[in-house]
Amino acid sequence: MAKTTDITTFFLETRTHTKEICNPLEIEDYVVQPIVDVSPPKWHLGHTTWFFEEFILKNHIKDYTVFDPDYSFVFNSYYESMGKRVVRADRGNLSRPSVNKIYEYREFVTSQMEALLNNQPSKEILQLTEIGIHHEKQHQELLLTDIKFILGNNPLLPIYETSFKEHPIEGQEQQWISIAEGVYEIGHSDNSFCYDNELGRHKVYLHPYSISNKLVTNKEYLEFINDDGYNKFQFWHSEGWDWINSNPINAPMYWHQIDGKWHHYTLGGIKELQLDLPVTHISYFEAFAFAQWKGCRLPTEFEWEIAATNFNWGTRWEWTESAYLPYPNYKKAAGALGEYNGKFMVNQKVLRGSSVATSVNHARISYRNFFQTKLRWQYTGVRLAQ
Amino acid sequence: MAKTTDITTFFLETRTHTKEICNPLEIEDYVVQPIVDVSPPKWHLGHTTWFFEEFILKNHIKDYTVFDPDYSFVFNSYYESMGKRVVRADRGNLSRPSVNKIYEYREFVTSQMEALLNNQPSKEILQLTEIGIHHEKQHQELLLTDIKFILGNNPLLPIYETSFKEHPIEGQEQQWISIAEGVYEIGHSDNSFCYDNELGRHKVYLHPYSISNKLVTNKEYLEFINDDGYNKFQFWHSEGWDWINSNPINAPMYWHQIDGKWHHYTLGGIKELQLDLPVTHISYFEAFAFAQWKGCRLPTEFEWEIAATNFNWGTRWEWTESAYLPYPNYKKAAGALGEYNGKFMVNQKVLRGSSVATSVNHARISYRNFFQTKLRWQYTGVRLAQ
Amino acid sequence: MAKTTDITTFFLETRTHTKEICNPLEIEDYVVQPIVDVSPPKWHLGHTTWFFEEFILKNHIKDYTVFDPDYSFVFNSYYESMGKRVVRADRGNLSRPSVNKIYEYREFVTSQMEALLNNQPSKEILQLTEIGIHHEKQHQELLLTDIKFILGNNPLLPIYETSFKEHPIEGQEQQWISIAEGVYEIGHSDNSFCYDNELGRHKVYLHPYSISNKLVTNKEYLEFINDDGYNKFQFWHSEGWDWINSNPINAPMYWHQIDGKWHHYTLGGIKELQLDLPVTHISYFEAFAFAQWKGCRLPTEFEWEIAATNFNWGTRWEWTESAYLPYPNYKKAAGALGEYNGKFMVNQKVLRGSSVATSVNHARISYRNFFQTKLRWQYTGVRLAQ
Amino acid sequence: MAKTTDITTFFLETRTHTKEICNPLEIEDYVVQPIVDVSPPKWHLGHTTWFFEEFILKNHIKDYTVFDPDYSFVFNSYYESMGKRVVRADRGNLSRPSVNKIYEYREFVTSQMEALLNNQPSKEILQLTEIGIHHEKQHQELLLTDIKFILGNNPLLPIYETSFKEHPIEGQEQQWISIAEGVYEIGHSDNSFCYDNELGRHKVYLHPYSISNKLVTNKEYLEFINDDGYNKFQFWHSEGWDWINSNPINAPMYWHQIDGKWHHYTLGGIKELQLDLPVTHISYFEAFAFAQWKGCRLPTEFEWEIAATNFNWGTRWEWTESAYLPYPNYKKAAGALGEYNGKFMVNQKVLRGSSVATSVNHARISYRNFFQTKLRWQYTGVRLAQ
Repeated sequence: MAKTTDITTFFLETRTHTKEICNPLEIEDYVVQPIVDVSPPKWHLGHTTWFFEEFILKNHIKDYTVFDPDYSFVFNSYYESMGKRVVRADRGNLSRPSVNKIYEYREFVTSQMEALLNNQPSKEILQLTEIGIHHEKQHQELLLTDIKFILGNNPLLPIYETSFKEHPIEGQEQQWISIAEGVYEIGHSDNSFCYDNELGRHKVYLHPYSISNKLVTNKEYLEFINDDGYNKFQFWHSEGWDWINSNPINAPMYWHQIDGKWHHYTLGGIKELQLDLPVTHISYFEAFAFAQWKGCRLPTEFEWEIAATNFNWGTRWEWTESAYLPYPNYKKAAGALGEYNGKFMVNQKVLRGSSVATSVNHARISYRNFFQTKLRWQYTGVRLAQ
Repeated sequence: MAKTTDITTFFLETRTHTKEICNPLEIEDYVVQPIVDVSPPKWHLGHTTWFFEEFILKNHIKDYTVFDPDYSFVFNSYYESMGKRVVRADRGNLSRPSVNKIYEYREFVTSQMEALLNNQPSKEILQLTEIGIHHEKQHQELLLTDIKFILGNNPLLPIYETSFKEHPIEGQEQQWISIAEGVYEIGHSDNSFCYDNELGRHKVYLHPYSISNKLVTNKEYLEFINDDGYNKFQFWHSEGWDWINSNPINAPMYWHQIDGKWHHYTLGGIKELQLDLPVTHISYFEAFAFAQWKGCRLPTEFEWEIAATNFNWGTRWEWTESAYLPYPNYKKAAGALGEYNGKFMVNQKVLRGSSVATSVNHARISYRNFFQTKLRWQYTGVRLAQ
Repeated sequence: MAKTTDITTFFLETRTHTKEICNPLEIEDYVVQPIVDVSPPKWHLGHTTWFFEEFILKNHIKDYTVFDPDYSFVFNSYYESMGKRVVRADRGNLSRPSVNKIYEYREFVTSQMEALLNNQPSKEILQLTEIGIHHEKQHQELLLTDIKFILGNNPLLPIYETSFKEHPIEGQEQQWISIAEGVYEIGHSDNSFCYDNELGRHKVYLHPYSISNKLVTNKEYLEFINDDGYNKFQFWHSEGWDWINSNPINAPMYWHQIDGKWHHYTLGGIKELQLDLPVTHISYFEAFAFAQWKGCRLPTEFEWEIAATNFNWGTRWEWTESAYLPYPNYKKAAGALGEYNGKFMVNQKVLRGSSVATSVNHARISYRNFFQTKLRWQYTGVRLAQ
Repeated sequence: MAKTTDITTFFLETRTHTKEICNPLEIEDYVVQPIVDVSPPKWHLGHTTWFFEEFILKNHIKDYTVFDPDYSFVFNSYYESMGKRVVRADRGNLSRPSVNKIYEYREFVTSQMEALLNNQPSKEILQLTEIGIHHEKQHQELLLTDIKFILGNNPLLPIYETSFKEHPIEGQEQQWISIAEGVYEIGHSDNSFCYDNELGRHKVYLHPYSISNKLVTNKEYLEFINDDGYNKFQFWHSEGWDWINSNPINAPMYWHQIDGKWHHYTLGGIKELQLDLPVTHISYFEAFAFAQWKGCRLPTEFEWEIAATNFNWGTRWEWTESAYLPYPNYKKAAGALGEYNGKFMVNQKVLRGSSVATSVNHARISYRNFFQTKLRWQYTGVRLAQ
């Protein structure tokens, strides 16, 4: 656990960074929700703020008066124990509270929190604050990927920020890293911050495997497309095959064929496809089919965790073959925070690593991200195993 | 046809009035589309402007350069002959073009039009301009009713404008006006402006009938509710009965029961239900069921038109029993404007009169409004016949 | 009203004819419901029987014991006043009661009815029996068209009956019959049987019009297809255009292109398209679009009724431009029979005439059939007007 | 691999048993498909027959003529490599081929197979026949559970067979079996028949756990219901909570409350709920929620396999916490049979054991059954772990 002064700094930096992410936006960009998975930016601003108010200020400041009693209804995401809430699909139907009002709400809660942290906070307050900071960092990534979806699906294809670098190049040669058979330890191991789903640390038996030292590139993925990979059922799960056949899906999200040439939309605008960059914005179904086509497979999350120190990671969330399940001796937190992770442990796949959209201090080897198998709007990627 | 100077004034007044309607809005209110029938206010601003650019400026100004070539795609509503367009359900997913940009677009087109009108415009330009003005007036009403939906379905129930008067009281006693059997003339009759669907003027045979001198009030409609009218199938069409049973519908739209008392949301905010005001925001199905319950019926549009001089009208669009069909000898306009009315003449009901949201100079006895039988977000109302 | 002996004969002939229609079926054909509009044949057998039991036997035989108390739930169609019922879409999910059991039920009710009719029945019984007979004749037509759908959508395309003649040829030359302007009388006029929706007889004013002496043929309709009529929006209602573009519709139902040649499935099997036969199995949307393409229009039901004595009719149900609405002074019957017609008088179009599938003694000039604008499984057709 | 004479006997017994399962049915019961997951019995009869014809007879009998060339289209289930097929949801829309015709088809294929097996069959034929037999045994279980659904959702609640025993009683006391931590071997181990998904045998590391010696009973599950378990979100996955709230689910499938008392429909008819029998027809979501409520959890499939010799199993398919994933070194079969298992290895849960509906010789400790988390029409059950 960090010291009080450190955590205040950490808190304020995080709160500021959220605003910085929104700097390039027009007011209108804060409002829309083009698909149910993408939340309006102003909702992220309000929700991350509500989290501090609901879980800390209301319980730890005597006679605390909430900024607006309706906000609990508007900015609750999924905490059933915290009462009724706007259904997720309706977030984009709400023009009020206005963006300015939500920024006022942020200022209010930030300063209340700052005062609290500067006044000999209890250990519980410090712990909850740490969770709130990490919660906001998670939303910072969603904020960026949701902004990308909002702008990238607008027919005008507006630029978010010209200088945004999505794609660090992986120049090294592709090699297979071999890992020996045996019993390994998995899970978060020191006393730094982690989520409950990274615990408890436990043993797994791994069979011998090898794993690639680099991510699959656009060039390799294009070969799969050009070999008609989207039309060959033998590489696909049955559910994946149904999905690509009942939706117009024949390339990664944000790829466009313009005058016979592949382009991709990035946060820096629409560009001709850069072949040497790691492929991104593909679903688990596509990652799996690509691996099958290549005669390989995806690693399990355990294989990934054990091998990770041998390769570079951090530009793409890497799909694994592992279903998102509790570790042995997994324990949910008491109360509403117990809803943070556990109740999503079904019908999702684990992604490991982090991405170009992940905030600083929010990546670690034991981190378990998870999404449904058809989702593509995150900066996902593929690393092969054998 | 109005004189050139008159029409320039009429044009500029209309353009200004659209902006006035939007004065009370926050930027965010311009963006959202909570249901497919409700368009974002900024879409209305752009679409009415596009109409002048597309049908007049592009054809009648030599070497005219459009403000933005993408806008035709974004702001076309349903004109198949005018090319591809954003699907209706996606209007609320577009944060760009921004509201400011659309206001620039409006200024640009308004001044281009003004210059054109001041430079000895042809008769065709004048006619198209007149259509464009009336088109914008139609959208002014939709703008108001869409704003009401956007604000009235927000959990914060924001006020549009405190002074907005929705409900002129009808204080006179209810009486039945009797009309004798015979052949009558129907349709627009002088050379003032009208839409093609009001022509051609023709004869109909009417059987003896009587029609109420006033609209049904909230008080009367509440009696229907309290008599369990929403639970008695015998008053309902089969399709209407299915509709109220598969949707949470047991009162007019915008009615809320708070602490056991009926309230209604108005553009002036949420208020206790005013019993003496004409009921509004009900579907045709509800209007029909109410009439059945009362032992009466709705008038046909012909009965309404013949009797209209005998009563006050203009606060509610009055549902009629008539299906929306072409008059004998109805002729569609040539080209894209032929898509204005004719292609909607199926599975809709005619509404007659006008409402508190109708713009000035946009109401006349022969006017034929039309909506699907389940829609409620317009200021609809009921007048009984026997 | 027919005499008692006549009505007994009429009743028994009708009951026998229903069974004859089912003669060519396998047991399995009685069970399935491929779309919600098509009921399983065994349901028709049960429902027409239930009608006699529910509306006559239960009320007019002292201490009558129903054949099976569950059948009211299974075989009620839409009579809300008669209690709960199997939802329409679930009729094809019921394997029981078995076909044999339903035939037992038929025998039981037929003999009970016969005994009642032979024992000095009251006038009310005679009237209800007449309604029950006509109700069953209506279902005989549905039985045939539902069987056609069941077999015609099976990949094996089984033959119903080789000798079934769907298509009497219309050999005469096409001519326009002119009708003069004036006030005409519409509706059922003598004291023979009719449904409530054909009353009361009333005056309408008709403008001068001309109407074709014959139906549109497959040859003419094929010209529309070959002129790309299904791809030209200007001929279609907006709702019709959406419908053909969100469904695989580019020809009448039951037309198949096999090895580059048009074929059609008939109750006599699959055959090469016969060009001189009247086109059938098209929706109102298609009938309207064809008429628009031809520069004509569909007649109103009033125009049809006044002109009908001047032309042959009876092989196709002819779409009219008229919405299905109550006549002036229309009165619903009291009680459950009041649900027979009135509650369907919205969002449907009137069809006039009758078809090759209509039972004998069930066609008359004032008869008003009605269907939704997209339905095609009846033997519909087109007659043009100007 | 069994000897030729043994396999012929095994084949003929299996073919006969399928017919025996259908003995109590009416012809109509063979036809219907009330939900997409339930196939019509006649489809099972045809499909299991098609499997032998398609994978064996067509390839291993010279100049073999198929019984009917359309049957490949009608009876293919999901083998993409075997060409087009009737979409699954349409199986219940097909009245033809008739049941009698399908029985002819069965006889034809059975005798062709018998001749082939009696004529010195190759090893490949024997292997494929063994797969075909096990394939048919799998469908025997589905046949029974589909019949239960068809009859159990008919409002007449017909009895399948009075003597059918669904529920062997588990009378022994509930105890916890403790298993020590360590590395264990998982997967099929001898050379008897198994599916590809049970291979290859491999090591897993298990943490110490205990597992119940008996299944959860109706009595225990009723306590969960009575404690309002279906209304307490904290026990449910987020997806499960949405599912029970958007469907009318508040008890196991086939439970009915009649006059205030719980009953359940069994293949022997509707009966008062027997409290001491193992609960069945619950989804994974319900199994998980029950375990949470009880303060326990579901075992993984590995925990189950290692402990299975210590307890009785075989009356219910036991939900495990394990996602259905390939074992290390899993290899798909070449060709169409490669579609048997692998392509379903996503978004499903493993069930272990077998049920009262499982055919003889079709249960083994390494068997991996799998279903989606919301399905309930199989004889599922719950065994708790800690």
